[in-house]
Amino acid sequence: MKILVINPNTTQSMTDTIGHAAARAASPGTTTVTVQPDKGPVSIESQYDSAFCVPGMLEIIRAAEEEGGYAGYVVACFRDPGLEAAREIATGPVIGICEAAMHAASMLGKGFTVVSTLKRSAKVQYDLARKYGFIDQLMSVRAAGVPVLELEDAHSGAADKVKAETLKAIEEDGAECVLLGCAGMVDLAQRLTQETGIPVMDGVTVAVKMVEALAGLGLGTSKIVSYAQPREKPYTGAFAGNAPGPVRKRAAE
Amino acid sequence: MKILVINPNTTQSMTDTIGHAAARAASPGTTTVTVQPDKGPVSIESQYDSAFCVPGMLEIIRAAEEEGGYAGYVVACFRDPGLEAAREIATGPVIGICEAAMHAASMLGKGFTVVSTLKRSAKVQYDLARKYGFIDQLMSVRAAGVPVLELEDAHSGAADKVKAETLKAIEEDGAECVLLGCAGMVDLAQRLTQETGIPVMDGVTVAVKMVEALAGLGLGTSKIVSYAQPREKPYTGAFAGNAPGPVRKRAAE
Amino acid sequence: MKILVINPNTTQSMTDTIGHAAARAASPGTTTVTVQPDKGPVSIESQYDSAFCVPGMLEIIRAAEEEGGYAGYVVACFRDPGLEAAREIATGPVIGICEAAMHAASMLGKGFTVVSTLKRSAKVQYDLARKYGFIDQLMSVRAAGVPVLELEDAHSGAADKVKAETLKAIEEDGAECVLLGCAGMVDLAQRLTQETGIPVMDGVTVAVKMVEALAGLGLGTSKIVSYAQPREKPYTGAFAGNAPGPVRKRAAE
Amino acid sequence: MKILVINPNTTQSMTDTIGHAAARAASPGTTTVTVQPDKGPVSIESQYDSAFCVPGMLEIIRAAEEEGGYAGYVVACFRDPGLEAAREIATGPVIGICEAAMHAASMLGKGFTVVSTLKRSAKVQYDLARKYGFIDQLMSVRAAGVPVLELEDAHSGAADKVKAETLKAIEEDGAECVLLGCAGMVDLAQRLTQETGIPVMDGVTVAVKMVEALAGLGLGTSKIVSYAQPREKPYTGAFAGNAPGPVRKRAAE
Amino acid sequence: MKILVINPNTTQSMTDTIGHAAARAASPGTTTVTVQPDKGPVSIESQYDSAFCVPGMLEIIRAAEEEGGYAGYVVACFRDPGLEAAREIATGPVIGICEAAMHAASMLGKGFTVVSTLKRSAKVQYDLARKYGFIDQLMSVRAAGVPVLELEDAHSGAADKVKAETLKAIEEDGAECVLLGCAGMVDLAQRLTQETGIPVMDGVTVAVKMVEALAGLGLGTSKIVSYAQPREKPYTGAFAGNAPGPVRKRAAE
Amino acid sequence: MKILVINPNTTQSMTDTIGHAAARAASPGTTTVTVQPDKGPVSIESQYDSAFCVPGMLEIIRAAEEEGGYAGYVVACFRDPGLEAAREIATGPVIGICEAAMHAASMLGKGFTVVSTLKRSAKVQYDLARKYGFIDQLMSVRAAGVPVLELEDAHSGAADKVKAETLKAIEEDGAECVLLGCAGMVDLAQRLTQETGIPVMDGVTVAVKMVEALAGLGLGTSKIVSYAQPREKPYTGAFAGNAPGPVRKRAAE
Repeated sequence: MKILVINPNTTQSMTDTIGHAAARAASPGTTTVTVQPDKGPVSIESQYDSAFCVPGMLEIIRAAEEEGGYAGYVVACFRDPGLEAAREIATGPVIGICEAAMHAASMLGKGFTVVSTLKRSAKVQYDLARKYGFIDQLMSVRAAGVPVLELEDAHSGAADKVKAETLKAIEEDGAECVLLGCAGMVDLAQRLTQETGIPVMDGVTVAVKMVEALAGLGLGTSKIVSYAQPREKPYTGAFAGNAPGPVRKRAAE
Repeated sequence: MKILVINPNTTQSMTDTIGHAAARAASPGTTTVTVQPDKGPVSIESQYDSAFCVPGMLEIIRAAEEEGGYAGYVVACFRDPGLEAAREIATGPVIGICEAAMHAASMLGKGFTVVSTLKRSAKVQYDLARKYGFIDQLMSVRAAGVPVLELEDAHSGAADKVKAETLKAIEEDGAECVLLGCAGMVDLAQRLTQETGIPVMDGVTVAVKMVEALAGLGLGTSKIVSYAQPREKPYTGAFAGNAPGPVRKRAAE
Repeated sequence: MKILVINPNTTQSMTDTIGHAAARAASPGTTTVTVQPDKGPVSIESQYDSAFCVPGMLEIIRAAEEEGGYAGYVVACFRDPGLEAAREIATGPVIGICEAAMHAASMLGKGFTVVSTLKRSAKVQYDLARKYGFIDQLMSVRAAGVPVLELEDAHSGAADKVKAETLKAIEEDGAECVLLGCAGMVDLAQRLTQETGIPVMDGVTVAVKMVEALAGLGLGTSKIVSYAQPREKPYTGAFAGNAPGPVRKRAAE
Repeated sequence: MKILVINPNTTQSMTDTIGHAAARAASPGTTTVTVQPDKGPVSIESQYDSAFCVPGMLEIIRAAEEEGGYAGYVVACFRDPGLEAAREIATGPVIGICEAAMHAASMLGKGFTVVSTLKRSAKVQYDLARKYGFIDQLMSVRAAGVPVLELEDAHSGAADKVKAETLKAIEEDGAECVLLGCAGMVDLAQRLTQETGIPVMDGVTVAVKMVEALAGLGLGTSKIVSYAQPREKPYTGAFAGNAPGPVRKRAAE
Repeated sequence: MKILVINPNTTQSMTDTIGHAAARAASPGTTTVTVQPDKGPVSIESQYDSAFCVPGMLEIIRAAEEEGGYAGYVVACFRDPGLEAAREIATGPVIGICEAAMHAASMLGKGFTVVSTLKRSAKVQYDLARKYGFIDQLMSVRAAGVPVLELEDAHSGAADKVKAETLKAIEEDGAECVLLGCAGMVDLAQRLTQETGIPVMDGVTVAVKMVEALAGLGLGTSKIVSYAQPREKPYTGAFAGNAPGPVRKRAAE
Repeated sequence: MKILVINPNTTQSMTDTIGHAAARAASPGTTTVTVQPDKGPVSIESQYDSAFCVPGMLEIIRAAEEEGGYAGYVVACFRDPGLEAAREIATGPVIGICEAAMHAASMLGKGFTVVSTLKRSAKVQYDLARKYGFIDQLMSVRAAGVPVLELEDAHSGAADKVKAETLKAIEEDGAECVLLGCAGMVDLAQRLTQETGIPVMDGVTVAVKMVEALAGLGLGTSKIVSYAQPREKPYTGAFAGNAPGPVRKRAAE
């Protein structure tokens, strides 16, 4: 099966990091392709950044659907931007990395903390946990005080800050799992799992496995009502080309 | 005070309808300006449509902020698209029409129903009610089975369908207020209030009054953490011009 | 429009403070009248005090309704005493100051703290936030340790204590708005907003604006079921005169 | 032990009905005294009625506390009026009949329905279930369409209406227990339990047993913060005599 | 009436402690019998221990039902193991001691803390509070760091540790009642109530009184659907003798 | 990797059905082994049945852990019996089939219905949805009125009844996914997915894939607090052999 992993920001080095992690996570027989939009923010640290990453991401998914070759999609930003819109145009599963990590954590321990980048993202994590049903299990959101792109810089001390917050999550929050709240932290997860003895998860690898799991069973997004293809209509101006066309019917539907 | 009302879709006749309603609702001393983006969907009936209305809407708010002349903003689509992103770039209050109507209903009666356009929007309304804290008061979401733009057509029978669902909301759901779940229904609210004897609310006029209320007290969006200005960074490709610039500081901050 | 603001306690100086704030908040074209009951507690610091402020407050509203001249009502105590009873006998909106402030805060920031008077009131605030739907947004309730009537005394140090708790709310609770949990703190709100840079709200002024907003749209309390006029029946003893009479019908109903 | 049961309305025949039921429920060694206020509504069917029953009820409890002879109190109206105020002035437990019945039902079956008097009371029951923590277990509130005082009239057909709703609760709501939502229905509970085979509970008898249970263990209301005695202060006008005096200290505190 | 109190672990000295407390709590006219299973863990400190205490406990209840002589049952472990299974085979009420204590606390104060034995039990208490509807009132769970059987040892210092946590619950958590989270702490409750001035409850005595209360009113477990007798079927192997037989019908059903 | 699938009941034909489904679901490189306890109920239709299936299931897991060869476990009964106890003694992930299906459904559609066997199981499903965080997404639980073992009988009409409820779930509940609430329905899932066009899921295959996903990333149950190995202690009587031994330490811990 082929899984399309989308880094919704436009920083190639981060796409590469995500891509390597996704590829390592994939089972034999799974190919992951990791891409980034051709427009939008170089990192996603606000709802404003989120808003401008989504159109490019949706274009990628729509093109991929037209090719017809992907079993499912991963949205590789811990704010899960555009997840529901993506589901409307996809037939396979679409999994966000925050979502995936929260689901996994809730099956592995009683209570998890998210170690995130900046303080301004904390309440977004609470909102997502509430939306997905995991608020009772969210012990805390801790900001490591690291901007997204510093995670790419080996000399930034970012890894140490993330580890420090992970230890505090265990000690002070009673967290039994820790979620690394940024796709850029993907390389830290395995190391911190070993160093702390508890599951420390990045969302990218978990989301890849979740897509494998669901698509492997032939399960896709339910197209019956809420995630049905958008109705055909004109779009104007610079987005004219993004207008939803006639609803495709596939055998599987 | 000047309030900017944004119809996030690109149908001029709907902008006009919203604009007239907003103007009628405004207090003496308030000027409302109603605009629409220069790109995006002609109506918003899916999360995909939502995603493509937001960039144009944010451009409008950002330009308005640079002019510095607006006391606050109304997002005139009942899905409240881009509300949090808008708050990050605004200094005054930003109020969505779904949000405004739900707040108002919760102070006027015990339990409300949303009469919406299409069935596919129903669960979005539940999600919003949950997010805003009003899920206990949301008795039901009823789809009138009317696409957004038919509301513009006097011969479509849309008004009758909306009325029929409003009566069922009272009778079957135990709704004590009814919210009209589309900016295109703004002209029906007053008529249905009189015909049913309960508060039937459109969100546009309520949101205008809520902005008046908050801005009239000198209250604006809290810029301290979650809604702080987005961090300065490059955007690439077609969105390069939307990159957040250096954070402006105003005296009030 | 004329709005009746009721200070439910019987301390004239506090009624004056509230009255001045309400008057300053009112739009041109709005007249506020601020009154207090002719019987009951001099301050409201317990549920027992609440119970004894309500009958006098309801008498005021009932008399006002018979005159027919008020567009709506503000209940100016942060425990929102008697709010639902008041709605049963009013036709216009009836807004409590706790309720108003919580609604406003939830549209301006992500998470608020209430800075209250005494510790014994804290859990009442949690109950109200839960009832109104804002519990997820209530970061904390902080008691300034100031009895209500000390707020009237410029030498009590009360203002400093309230400010200290406001700063802690920002720092320790992650509050993005602060609500001053007593009508007697109304004069501090504007000052603290300026000093802290976040919205610090008293409920009185917000409630006045909310009544203006709703009544300005012709919206009143839904009289259909829960807030219908009380059924006619005898009351005995000292409350005989408070018995609900035949249900009045107004054109608007 | 002596338990004081308060019918908060002023209809003697209803006080008698409640009193007989309370006496039958009491264990050997328990004496129940059932009283009614000397002022207020003849039945409680609105929040307005509630407001005017509370002062007389609190006077009764305060006088009883001064005598010092009661182990605890039952508030015998299914709206649980004034419960928290009563706890502030009582030392023993104070139990509302709605509260008591909901607690009992939640230990005897999975899900209960309240069969109430009038439709206008239904949402009050939902609010109480939410407040007490039983909203997940509240399957429905059904109005028998019977005003409170008709329950006193053997020829009103009220009993049949209550039974019909009880059967629907079992069949249509999946209720496994039924609560009779008015103190006036106390005599029906035992009969309906036998006729339906499920626990059909009135609140009066359950509340008496709950007070017996708690007081029998020497447990009383926690006086430490929220339910501490009201602070001493003047009350004005007709309520001057209700002013809280100096806080009494008892050995047990 | 006869009440069967089951210590689900197999430590005789703890059964004795529980038995004495139950007997002291019982009203005149009530006989309590306290027993323990003939197999299973000597103390219950994990879900695994819970799983192995339940079969023996159910055997006890089933045998008791066949004798037909018990009015109701108490499950005397603060994890409330096997409660729902027990209800399926019982006709009288079955009350868990955690459940009983939480119900009682919620009627006596606003907010309680559980002082438990080991840290690993803390989240079980949160789960139970969530299940029973009391999560809003659960201020905290504090582990005294005392294994269950040390409570039996007068020299272990366990009582002092429990008291220290009780005081912190009052001071730091804002708890207004404290629940002792282990049947082995039953003797401490009365002493700590006196020393702290707030209700400090063990669950055993409260549960006995709750069974007395409900059974005293002729109320039993609702046998209509969820707690109906298990369907007759074979069990295999070592549990063959535990197979549910033909469903007994009693007059009371 | 090797996954151990446990049918907690003792009916061999059902174990076979589950085993075939699990094997079909497994990825290349995964081996599933499906077993059943040597004692306990032939089907699980009550909490009583649940209680007697758990000891045998835990013995299986404990033995498997001692062999050390399994990457994770599936508990193949839709009541998820003994899940938390199992996690305490396992090192790999332990996934229940109800849990797995609910997680999957929540990522594929907005709202699901469970089509279960008997009415008496319905509220157990609500409890599980509440516990796992999916109550907002649980549209309904529908009982097909089919005892578990009839599912094994091709002539029982059970499949038609399950299909009929599945169609009603779509039509009447607004379900966008349907979960088949019994391991015995595993063969119907794929067929109903094709016939209805929405994801119809059995839990067995989803749980196998979830274990593959998590174990494939090297993630196991968090052993730090709540799911730590049970403390060593004696068990008495027939369960003496089940006593937790000294806590094993593995490198991975």
